[in-house]
Amino acid sequence: MSAYSELKARFHKRSAIEGALATLQWDRAAMMPTGGAEARAEQVAVLETLAHGLVAAPELPELLEAAAAEPLAEGDRANLAEMRHAWVHAAAVPADLVAALAKAGAACEMAWRAARPAADFPAVLPRLEALLALVREEAAAKAEALGVSPYDALLDGYEPGGQSAEIDAIFADLAAFLPGFLDDVLARQAARPEPLPLPGPFPAATQRAMVRRVMTAMGFDFAHGRLDESAHPFCGGIADDVRLTTRYDEADAFSGVFGVIHETGHALYERGLPEAWRGQPAGQARGMSLHESQSLSMEMQAGRGRAFLSWLAPVLAEAFGGTGPAWSVENFVALAQRVERGFIRVEADEVTYPAHVILRYRLERAMVAGDLPLADLPEAWNAGMRDLLGVVPPDDRLGCLQDIHWYDGAWGYFPTYTLGAMTAAQLFAAARAAVPDLEAALARGDFSPLLGWMRANVHARASLLPTAEILRRATGKPLDAQAFKAHLTARYLA
Amino acid sequence: MSAYSELKARFHKRSAIEGALATLQWDRAAMMPTGGAEARAEQVAVLETLAHGLVAAPELPELLEAAAAEPLAEGDRANLAEMRHAWVHAAAVPADLVAALAKAGAACEMAWRAARPAADFPAVLPRLEALLALVREEAAAKAEALGVSPYDALLDGYEPGGQSAEIDAIFADLAAFLPGFLDDVLARQAARPEPLPLPGPFPAATQRAMVRRVMTAMGFDFAHGRLDESAHPFCGGIADDVRLTTRYDEADAFSGVFGVIHETGHALYERGLPEAWRGQPAGQARGMSLHESQSLSMEMQAGRGRAFLSWLAPVLAEAFGGTGPAWSVENFVALAQRVERGFIRVEADEVTYPAHVILRYRLERAMVAGDLPLADLPEAWNAGMRDLLGVVPPDDRLGCLQDIHWYDGAWGYFPTYTLGAMTAAQLFAAARAAVPDLEAALARGDFSPLLGWMRANVHARASLLPTAEILRRATGKPLDAQAFKAHLTARYLA
Repeated sequence: MSAYSELKARFHKRSAIEGALATLQWDRAAMMPTGGAEARAEQVAVLETLAHGLVAAPELPELLEAAAAEPLAEGDRANLAEMRHAWVHAAAVPADLVAALAKAGAACEMAWRAARPAADFPAVLPRLEALLALVREEAAAKAEALGVSPYDALLDGYEPGGQSAEIDAIFADLAAFLPGFLDDVLARQAARPEPLPLPGPFPAATQRAMVRRVMTAMGFDFAHGRLDESAHPFCGGIADDVRLTTRYDEADAFSGVFGVIHETGHALYERGLPEAWRGQPAGQARGMSLHESQSLSMEMQAGRGRAFLSWLAPVLAEAFGGTGPAWSVENFVALAQRVERGFIRVEADEVTYPAHVILRYRLERAMVAGDLPLADLPEAWNAGMRDLLGVVPPDDRLGCLQDIHWYDGAWGYFPTYTLGAMTAAQLFAAARAAVPDLEAALARGDFSPLLGWMRANVHARASLLPTAEILRRATGKPLDAQAFKAHLTARYLA
Repeated sequence: MSAYSELKARFHKRSAIEGALATLQWDRAAMMPTGGAEARAEQVAVLETLAHGLVAAPELPELLEAAAAEPLAEGDRANLAEMRHAWVHAAAVPADLVAALAKAGAACEMAWRAARPAADFPAVLPRLEALLALVREEAAAKAEALGVSPYDALLDGYEPGGQSAEIDAIFADLAAFLPGFLDDVLARQAARPEPLPLPGPFPAATQRAMVRRVMTAMGFDFAHGRLDESAHPFCGGIADDVRLTTRYDEADAFSGVFGVIHETGHALYERGLPEAWRGQPAGQARGMSLHESQSLSMEMQAGRGRAFLSWLAPVLAEAFGGTGPAWSVENFVALAQRVERGFIRVEADEVTYPAHVILRYRLERAMVAGDLPLADLPEAWNAGMRDLLGVVPPDDRLGCLQDIHWYDGAWGYFPTYTLGAMTAAQLFAAARAAVPDLEAALARGDFSPLLGWMRANVHARASLLPTAEILRRATGKPLDAQAFKAHLTARYLA
């Protein structure tokens, strides 16, 4: 057996373990009774250790080196590069640090779950300090292995090849553009009548059937996936068996359907990964910014645009027996494109969302660098909100306690949300230019032209090319903020 | 770390993998979309290989020997004995035979799924022959390792310590008793009016709520388990998170509720295993006959008895808005205690069930010994049905193709069903003698006295004692057919 074949078999095994883990994580969120939590945590820890061990194994460097000397086709060479990348990440962190991080992350998350509703940052501070100390150790170890800064080493775990120098430039462009733009949008919005809220209630059973209709229109294949319910909607599972979740608020069907559209965008990406590369690193989704670009192409670019809303409005009206002006396309557009200065990232519209992300990006870089003591985080948060959005949260529940990421150990993740939004705008513009009937199809509830273009230009490329190269081939240029700014301007100020 | 501690850590890890597998198997049956099958099969194969490898590892014999020389408490010594037993089973079978068995079992099961509805035994015969050849290899290897006959070596995998010599004696007793008894029961039944069928339909949603009420009455804890739906009802999951399934036939709520009571009996056993021994071999359910004794204590001994039926009849009448004589306790007793000579084991009543099992036990022993060529199975099956039950199935779908067991590689399993029925009778008689208000409680829909006795006398003992010793301590004597015969006589001829 060649060294490369041996590596392929090993990564295939790792992929099977990770697939099992994905089902267990979905089950934990959507199915598991509370009493199963402790046993499940042990199962997950054991499987994660086994998966890590397969890639961190001492024989890996020799296998990688031997494989590099073998004659390999282009795709296999890309696959080998991804294997090496996975090995660098796995081997950089000693097994006891992996275990300590998992333990500290679980303890901090648990403390956060109690501290957030109580708006009690000091209660979680010691746990967060302990966790960040370990994250900084991890960052230092990976920085040395990857030859980048500690923050970029963390970022690389979510966004392979991502660099804060590039992000800085793009975010600076956005930060210069957005405050004035937001003022203009809000002024324009204030001059118009308020959108009418859709009159409920919206029975969960009706919502269940309605969102399945939307998912089917988007191209979701229920022979290869499910939609269930969980407290925090997510997209999990594997390419051949994608597991989405949502939640049904009987007072609000509108944000629910956009949540499902968002998660379905993630799901379609996973499902569109090339079958020939199943189980191999090159067959995985490329990174979190491309992943977010797929959910945001569907939710923000297509979903909240007038064309699709002209199909959605009568579908919802029919489902809930709605009549009158609240169910008009005009009102749906006003509801879907409402802009507001708010405190909460996950409820933010696409105009204010980047400010939330830029704030977190700046803060987490400072904290990872040791330049911002954690005790000063609430104050720094509030100051940043004032600068970037002009509002200050009344307490830390609506401030620095709102997101799980830091408290769960996910540092270096936040910028991918806004990189994803900009990538979505750039991809969508290219798709629209390449596929003339794309908007007309959306107006018939038909996503297939859009999906077909994404399948060919993004999904099928999996991790066979770097993110930047996928984007360059798909759109003709590297990522910048132009398409995003043009999209916002066209939608909110035209 | 002592050798025993090292073994405990290793078996704990195996238990975590097996717990993950249990969730994945449940998911496959109850949740997974069809398109996930291939990936799931790979996940299961990888995890099973890892679990097998942990126990079949070459360092095990040395660890077991070293641990045996360490000072251990009584429970730890029992645990060590179970570890050794697991090792003997795992190490006896080379890894390539394990893989070949899994593959041949999957292929044969697939062929069986097509052959059964077509009543086409010849279509599955070559696959079954290939599978049996491997099973006989496995049996020979385990026979040598265990120092027992090949059949007993297979039996030992389901019923540790089970011996066909003992089963022969007990089954001979039953086989002598049952034919005449069955004639008497049928004659008596023929002299009475036929029970009235319950008038449906029975909406699935109403059944769902009703069976949850019954499960709660039985002591099932929904914080540590779920009830879902699958084509073939089963009890899976782990002690802290038991996953039951059922199916809802809208034309028949009656057999559905007894199916749930049966599976809940299995679930309560798992849930009652001692917490202090979680993850260790001594903490597992003892074997399949005790497991079946727990489902049958609940379904046959308690569930189909007059006391519980006097509670159940009005509960069902209320759930489905039933009125009139079909909903009377008398009619429920007649329905629940109906006896019939039938072709299908899983639909058989408790009087004719042993004949189905004795037939399969005799046939599988002959096939494993090489005394019955598989091509002659249909003829031998039909002859056995004529001798034991006086009916001959019109085709192999209702004959030797009806059960999945042989086609799936589960040889040596069948006798545990009837050992379980006899164990249930013996345990229930002891519980009734020890707990005076047991029947009165059942008449109030209260299973707690029965469950409390089972918890103390069976569940808490897990695998800390051999099956025979658990039974001796609980009932004062080893297993025989007396309590079962007395139960049948009291219920059907009194």
